[in-house]
Amino acid sequence: MENKSYIFNSEIPYEVTGEGTKRKVLAYNDKMMAVENKFQKGAKGAPHKHPHLQLVYVPEGEFYFTLEGETKIIKKGDSVLVKENAIHSCECIEEGILLDIFSPMREDFIK
Amino acid sequence: MENKSYIFNSEIPYEVTGEGTKRKVLAYNDKMMAVENKFQKGAKGAPHKHPHLQLVYVPEGEFYFTLEGETKIIKKGDSVLVKENAIHSCECIEEGILLDIFSPMREDFIK
Repeated sequence: MENKSYIFNSEIPYEVTGEGTKRKVLAYNDKMMAVENKFQKGAKGAPHKHPHLQLVYVPEGEFYFTLEGETKIIKKGDSVLVKENAIHSCECIEEGILLDIFSPMREDFIK
Repeated sequence: MENKSYIFNSEIPYEVTGEGTKRKVLAYNDKMMAVENKFQKGAKGAPHKHPHLQLVYVPEGEFYFTLEGETKIIKKGDSVLVKENAIHSCECIEEGILLDIFSPMREDFIK
């Protein structure tokens, strides 16, 4: 799949990542990677950090998003810039998707 | 706005970019920038290129997307990787949004 230009969502299987959470790795190359994270209501993303720059966009749903100890509510069309090694977490208020774009790509998401 | 972590969509005004097209610059720093492009049905993005790497994601709507002469239909959840200086264009089939993520940021989109 790597370096394919077009990635059609329906052709990518979900990978279960936790209780009420699953993801699809979408288009990427070594410099940038898009990942859809689907959350059921109440599902959480535990606090974590990584050396990759991350941009979060909300295609649908509503979430509490916590960045370096500051929690805000984000919903459709909102975006968050998560700098390298910043601690972040989330909790789903209304079922939906968080789109993460990483730079560079997440090698650990590819088997 | 630069380097603000949280960008709430409702607080960003649209900028008209052409006939039936308008955009909002969302979260960004120097390395990455997210931009929503809203298209009315039939609106087009003319062929162009730029030195920035670009990842396109479809939050809603349906589009013809042409990359280096190859046209495919993309819709909700689909993504396209547009390499640096690759010629690309689009035409809106059903009203919607193309989310572009650029790396590095588009200096020319900031006044």
